[in-house]
Amino acid sequence: MQIVTLGPKGTFSEEAALLYQKRITGKVDPEKIKFFNIFDCLQEVESYRADRAVLPAENMVDGIIGITFDALIDFHDFVKVNDEVHVNIEYVLAGKMKVAGEVEKIFSHPSALNQCAHKLDNLFPTLVQVPVSSTAEAAVKAMEEPGVAALCSPRTALEYGLNILHENLADYPNNETRFFVCGLTDSPPTGNDRTLLAVRFGVNRPGQLHEITGFFAENNIDLTFVQSRPYKVRPQEYVLIFEMIGHKSEPGLKNALNKVEQNVRATDGWKKVLGSYPHRKKEEKPLAHKPGRKSS
Amino acid sequence: MQIVTLGPKGTFSEEAALLYQKRITGKVDPEKIKFFNIFDCLQEVESYRADRAVLPAENMVDGIIGITFDALIDFHDFVKVNDEVHVNIEYVLAGKMKVAGEVEKIFSHPSALNQCAHKLDNLFPTLVQVPVSSTAEAAVKAMEEPGVAALCSPRTALEYGLNILHENLADYPNNETRFFVCGLTDSPPTGNDRTLLAVRFGVNRPGQLHEITGFFAENNIDLTFVQSRPYKVRPQEYVLIFEMIGHKSEPGLKNALNKVEQNVRATDGWKKVLGSYPHRKKEEKPLAHKPGRKSS
Repeated sequence: MQIVTLGPKGTFSEEAALLYQKRITGKVDPEKIKFFNIFDCLQEVESYRADRAVLPAENMVDGIIGITFDALIDFHDFVKVNDEVHVNIEYVLAGKMKVAGEVEKIFSHPSALNQCAHKLDNLFPTLVQVPVSSTAEAAVKAMEEPGVAALCSPRTALEYGLNILHENLADYPNNETRFFVCGLTDSPPTGNDRTLLAVRFGVNRPGQLHEITGFFAENNIDLTFVQSRPYKVRPQEYVLIFEMIGHKSEPGLKNALNKVEQNVRATDGWKKVLGSYPHRKKEEKPLAHKPGRKSS
Repeated sequence: MQIVTLGPKGTFSEEAALLYQKRITGKVDPEKIKFFNIFDCLQEVESYRADRAVLPAENMVDGIIGITFDALIDFHDFVKVNDEVHVNIEYVLAGKMKVAGEVEKIFSHPSALNQCAHKLDNLFPTLVQVPVSSTAEAAVKAMEEPGVAALCSPRTALEYGLNILHENLADYPNNETRFFVCGLTDSPPTGNDRTLLAVRFGVNRPGQLHEITGFFAENNIDLTFVQSRPYKVRPQEYVLIFEMIGHKSEPGLKNALNKVEQNVRATDGWKKVLGSYPHRKKEEKPLAHKPGRKSS
């Protein structure tokens, strides 16, 4: 099974892809994972060059990764959300030096710096924070540049041979990131599913959100979140994204989706089901450190 | 008037702060603008060290800047949204080299790279894209490192003495970013206002969003957007953020807010008005390039 994800090696995205690979194939094979940006990951699936794209959807502290949802809307005719992977998020300070007192600059992904903002300000108030494109890139900088430490996962620190200078730096306990697994079709019902829906109103008027949410309420459908994503043609015009509990094939949800379709069609709007997929819990057995570098 | 914003010098945030300064004081004085991260900007206002914080709220293509909304919730007892600045967003490729053919790497803020993703892929498919912390940092890299160009505003390119190698790189025309101006109080009604509201449900059950939006619908209040922001204690628990047309002191909106208060109180939830503020259009007279470096 060819899996693509947002890289590079050593990021939480790679970890999510490996956890999914292990769930499906029973083993971990880092060589089978390829890295692209979010848009190109879905392009690989659409073009039959990859079976699955594993994309970051939302972090418990930092919120949704908007680009993933925008790309799912762009590719809705070809690619659907198919499954989830919930990755435990843990941050450490890691570097070539022996103690945290020798660190001058902390490099990391902006989202990671935000997830640890309060602890970093309390523990290391004088250190300069430098945002880079990934926690893996931060680890590379920590290897190469004196005085630089990376804020990254323990797995990344070990992968790059860095010393762990301070553990447990996430501001909120039980931090996790949810990834969407995307394929050419979505998944059959399991009894514990989620459905992702995009809705665009044609003409705008007060009360539309109330009408749409009424179709879900009268069918006892529980919405888990709603997000206004940019429609990109004019300021303050949006596509609404709803996630809800249930599978699109269940009678109540099916009924609600039909009502939404009638409603948006009347104003020349549209709705797109972006997928139904099983809801997962946080992976209980995280990957061993240094996957693929073990002997034997 | 002391204004703080997300820096550094040469970013769209600085431009927004200068445009607001010009609107209020009639002149542009870059020396009076100080730079902090988003959280610390509001801390400066809360502590009476700054009069206004100018913070990025949403880009027309890339969506909301979640951290700004999260910080507004954290500081809701002290700081309110008070005004808006809409900044025209234009991107150019800029470097020390003479032609775009000599560029090897494009540095920019991840949001800028995303706003120009399709044009960059079409025009410069082989160039490596490197995300950095700001468009201003990208301009510094373009000054220092051979083969590096910055994706930044024309103003930033001129500010850093770079040649403009390619203009008009934004994927969508009329691109703009809206900034919130935050102070110790919000603004009196002008007749064309917006109100920002945060709502947290205590107990979760189906139909809550439908109930809440009903209070706005029955008072003919038009919601402009709704966003689920993380509550940060457990996965998939949220604070809902609504923006709506109207001022919190107008009878219909006041009535709706009272109904929301009764509703959330019944389930041990809460609501917080984050501010009422005049709605602005895009600034028609952009700043001259190189502000503050002109003679006389």
